Amino acid sequence: MNAVVLAADGTPRLVDRPRPEPDPGEVLVRIDRVGIDGTDREVVGGAHGDLAESMVLGHEAVGTVADPNGTEFAEDETVVPTVRRPPGDQNAYFRRGEPDMAPMDATVECGIDGADGFMAEYVAVPSEYLLRIPESLAPYGFLVEPLSITAKALELASASRQPFTWNRDRALVLGTGSLGLLTLPVLDERFEEVYCLGRRDRDDPAVELAREVGATYIDSRETAVDEIPAAHAPMDLVYEATGHAPHAVQSVSALAPNGVAALLGVPEEHSGEVSLGAFHRELVLGNRAVVGSVNAGYSHFEQAVDWLAALPEPFRAAFTEHIYPLESFEAALDSDVIKAAVEMEP
Amino acid sequence: MNAVVLAADGTPRLVDRPRPEPDPGEVLVRIDRVGIDGTDREVVGGAHGDLAESMVLGHEAVGTVADPNGTEFAEDETVVPTVRRPPGDQNAYFRRGEPDMAPMDATVECGIDGADGFMAEYVAVPSEYLLRIPESLAPYGFLVEPLSITAKALELASASRQPFTWNRDRALVLGTGSLGLLTLPVLDERFEEVYCLGRRDRDDPAVELAREVGATYIDSRETAVDEIPAAHAPMDLVYEATGHAPHAVQSVSALAPNGVAALLGVPEEHSGEVSLGAFHRELVLGNRAVVGSVNAGYSHFEQAVDWLAALPEPFRAAFTEHIYPLESFEAALDSDVIKAAVEMEP
Repeated sequence: MNAVVLAADGTPRLVDRPRPEPDPGEVLVRIDRVGIDGTDREVVGGAHGDLAESMVLGHEAVGTVADPNGTEFAEDETVVPTVRRPPGDQNAYFRRGEPDMAPMDATVECGIDGADGFMAEYVAVPSEYLLRIPESLAPYGFLVEPLSITAKALELASASRQPFTWNRDRALVLGTGSLGLLTLPVLDERFEEVYCLGRRDRDDPAVELAREVGATYIDSRETAVDEIPAAHAPMDLVYEATGHAPHAVQSVSALAPNGVAALLGVPEEHSGEVSLGAFHRELVLGNRAVVGSVNAGYSHFEQAVDWLAALPEPFRAAFTEHIYPLESFEAALDSDVIKAAVEMEP
Repeated sequence: MNAVVLAADGTPRLVDRPRPEPDPGEVLVRIDRVGIDGTDREVVGGAHGDLAESMVLGHEAVGTVADPNGTEFAEDETVVPTVRRPPGDQNAYFRRGEPDMAPMDATVECGIDGADGFMAEYVAVPSEYLLRIPESLAPYGFLVEPLSITAKALELASASRQPFTWNRDRALVLGTGSLGLLTLPVLDERFEEVYCLGRRDRDDPAVELAREVGATYIDSRETAVDEIPAAHAPMDLVYEATGHAPHAVQSVSALAPNGVAALLGVPEEHSGEVSLGAFHRELVLGNRAVVGSVNAGYSHFEQAVDWLAALPEPFRAAFTEHIYPLESFEAALDSDVIKAAVEMEP
């Protein structure tokens, strides 16, 4: 079968691999579509761990059950795989259903670090790592994984504000990548006003899409993150999806008192001068918080399916305008569109 | 009556003030003891706002009801006042019982910023800002306020970890001031191991007290905060009570995956070079969090009374070894003991 791997020499390639034989408890899934995001580009860039041997790329997938193999799944059901697997033996994080809370040395991540991903015609997935979704959502199913990332981050951010009455007037998304854009309508349901910061021109399709769901666009080349409270308003939530290292600290200066910044990006090495006193004081005197969040658990995938079903059209359709055939995986990886995905031969 | 004020020229002075006449709804309280902490020294140092006129110092108080004045209190009951008051008119934060969540411009703080404190023979306190405590706790009652600070900070920290199974193996207190020391036995009840970092010699009474409640002492002159995971172990909770600006960032590098740093100090201006990429990545890939916390609400004061009652002897007694008469307030402010307090003429 066809598969796109990151070869041991660090280049992505279309190769021929044997179709997997599902072990007991595994489901054979025919992959339909695989989304591409910033993480995939980081993986190709070598940012997510050393590669001992070639690894199938792709972690945002939707497929169809080809062989239930005696599990509780049925043939032809539409399914989405989760991303983390135990590294060898099970461990406490997986046993208690919290793989997303496993430290990096207690998990592998399919298509990211240490395990084959889903950019192949068939994959064998242990049934406990597979989620059933409605067939009507199949064309968009590769968006479940990124939405699950948001579901977890918002759960952590909200929990940190649970002991008191959290104002939900304004939320700000940092980044106009697919994860940031997908998060805008979710936040629009929960906050009075939603803002989005990026480095794109105002006529860029991503910016137009952000505005279509009611977000106010802020061009970071005109307004820095820490200027946002004065130029617009202080934010009750900042959702960082840029991976730009200074944003971990700058997010706090965009927050209203009692606000929280959720960090999701994975930046490279970067050092800089920081007003540590101001950072510390803003956190303390304003009861502010910063929560980091990575990956997502099963319940977050379930939440993501509900959110995906509720996304407005044509917003959702904008994420399926750039579907590439598998052979064009390089164009998909190189594209700068709202969302790119590859599709297997139907 | 006698009162210790911070005069408009910025010096603390013992002065004569008229005994307050309680307005309707206010209780006349005869103050017994007032604790001194780092915040008082910051106030005297001018760090907490401009002083338009002289302000009575002191925010950690215990007293006795001298005149219930028609409120639900009874004469001779032992009481502790809370610290925040609405600035002029009520506002939403006070109306919903969350004064500790008020932004700094929506509150004044007795003895800290904008309102008279409690270092006087008598104060008039609106009954809703007064807490009844058992008479047996009267000698220690000035510890309720600092313990309430910890109650709130731990509530926020725990809430941020609520969505998943938080390991509670190790907690680290940064600081060997009275707030940090008071927090050690509270954490010892909730974590397997408790550590305490400071800059004192090992034979300092504060360090000996920390060890008496089972804490492992770390001398910051030998081991920096970010070296603690390698030298000892990574921490599930870091409780920062130093007000040292770099600790806001360094705390995160002492955390285990899924750990949280609670920040409580109020540092001065300080800038420094930060490995922003590492800070950002540690937060995200380790699901770590930072929560700032200031002041405390009524429920935290109630929690603090329970904790105070449960503190082991002679630990509790160590906080009442340095009680100064009111006239010696300067010695109390200048002291470097486990805890200093001033006492009114009995």
